[in-house]
Amino acid sequence: MSTASNSILETEKNSAQRAASVAFQGELGAYSQSAVYSFFGKSSVGRVVPLPTLQRVFGTLCDKNSDLDYAVVPLENSLAGTIGETVDLLISHDVRIVGETSVPVEHCLIIHKDTTLEKIKKVMSHPQALAQCREYLDADERKDWEQVSVYDTAGSVKMIKEQNLTECAGIASELAAEIHGMKVAAKGIEDDHSNATRFIVVQNSSKRSKSDESSFISTEPTGKDKTSAIFVTRHEPGALVRALTSLSSRRINLGKIESRPIRGKPWEYYFYVDFEGHQKEERCAKAIADLVYQSEELKVLGSYKKGV
Amino acid sequence: MSTASNSILETEKNSAQRAASVAFQGELGAYSQSAVYSFFGKSSVGRVVPLPTLQRVFGTLCDKNSDLDYAVVPLENSLAGTIGETVDLLISHDVRIVGETSVPVEHCLIIHKDTTLEKIKKVMSHPQALAQCREYLDADERKDWEQVSVYDTAGSVKMIKEQNLTECAGIASELAAEIHGMKVAAKGIEDDHSNATRFIVVQNSSKRSKSDESSFISTEPTGKDKTSAIFVTRHEPGALVRALTSLSSRRINLGKIESRPIRGKPWEYYFYVDFEGHQKEERCAKAIADLVYQSEELKVLGSYKKGV
Repeated sequence: MSTASNSILETEKNSAQRAASVAFQGELGAYSQSAVYSFFGKSSVGRVVPLPTLQRVFGTLCDKNSDLDYAVVPLENSLAGTIGETVDLLISHDVRIVGETSVPVEHCLIIHKDTTLEKIKKVMSHPQALAQCREYLDADERKDWEQVSVYDTAGSVKMIKEQNLTECAGIASELAAEIHGMKVAAKGIEDDHSNATRFIVVQNSSKRSKSDESSFISTEPTGKDKTSAIFVTRHEPGALVRALTSLSSRRINLGKIESRPIRGKPWEYYFYVDFEGHQKEERCAKAIADLVYQSEELKVLGSYKKGV
Repeated sequence: MSTASNSILETEKNSAQRAASVAFQGELGAYSQSAVYSFFGKSSVGRVVPLPTLQRVFGTLCDKNSDLDYAVVPLENSLAGTIGETVDLLISHDVRIVGETSVPVEHCLIIHKDTTLEKIKKVMSHPQALAQCREYLDADERKDWEQVSVYDTAGSVKMIKEQNLTECAGIASELAAEIHGMKVAAKGIEDDHSNATRFIVVQNSSKRSKSDESSFISTEPTGKDKTSAIFVTRHEPGALVRALTSLSSRRINLGKIESRPIRGKPWEYYFYVDFEGHQKEERCAKAIADLVYQSEELKVLGSYKKGV
């Protein structure tokens, strides 16, 4: 829990209720932080808590002494696909999904506030971000820049600031430039402008039931909802089809299905699904009852308002 | 195409047929190279071609001037899940799958041949390998070692050799120690001994039809086969269930299903499936015909003998 984040990001608190404390993975200015603001609105966030790994984000959220209200974590990217680690952590931790949001990946070339583009000889960012800006970096005037892989997009901007690097650019979000007081030299430099990341908002399940006052998000049916669940099929041919028929026979649309390896059982899988509707709706409740019957294990991760 | 690999690995050629040239991703000694030997047998491999990225492996295999016969690429790991990049490259390149093999991930602590364990102060490897050996590295006598992330497991051993590092250990396969002439200080240091990676053997489709003499692998039905395909469902509720029913209605077992994002169409997916049987068998051929009808696009990647 960075004190820097407190001083920079502490905002006016709504007098009616305590503003939310929200964790995310990455450095200040990460795309995950943009997702926090996109979902809650900047003024409803009391404190953002940047943590170095997704493991730490889930661990801290589930720690009974933690004062975190939520965590916002990436579930999938429209180019790279599902973030398997997030799905695995949803299983191993007692959390529920209470919302979702999508954030466009709009990469900026960010340089030190005291330098100019002409002085740049090197560019650093997360290897995936460097790969996503290939066309921009291959242009004649930039093709001789040395490309350096670092652990985090926003981390590259932090390094430029802390080490006073005037010959090195970073690639990260506009928010990263803003937070670290650095300069945006170019915007929207990614090859594919349709690239976006879908984030989910998770809450410690046990905490929620204890005190409803810490609940900023309603998960009552809105008529435009989505339910997420994880299941393991029986070991029989056609088991997956029978499980999915629980949904399709009720004309419930499947939004996403993802398989993940089961730990210690090579080449066996569990499935993560998103489908239309709310578990408090009859059609959906019946489908879930059916799905329980058709699977060896089932965990409903939550029903929440569609945000994507 | 490294000349080093030629001198080290050129083996006796079978007089009846030319030995195979096989590409893989990574440095010499990578787990992918172990997979090459596991599938073909060391004596049937004439030349191994280490290439830096999966993109380069597929690109080189499909280059019409290339003399490569096959590439061996990772499809999934029993802990980390599917390698999405491989699935995407299977779609975008004109290749077929002709075989598969599974290689246990057995990490070794590797040190310079002129040093001892007592002198080690630092350990480097791919971040995933470091994470997989957490228990070993957290032990009292090693917990003060600095951990450094590098791009490749076998690459850490190469660096130890080339830079004469006597205070630094690497984590990689036993093959990496053997090839680079370094010393195995400990073996089987991974936390989870069930961890394995499944590799597929791919061939340039057009090359194969041109000259059968370069075909070392028969893909005729053996009675114990597997078929891999990629499809896009129609945009209708229940479309995935109807597609999979093409298989389940014939009691064809689905071994694996994996969704991947479609480029430029956020939150739309295509599906990769492995199922039992050979496309030259009637039951399987009918299922495929049905699957063609039920999907918007279908690409059969190949039928091959089960190896996992």
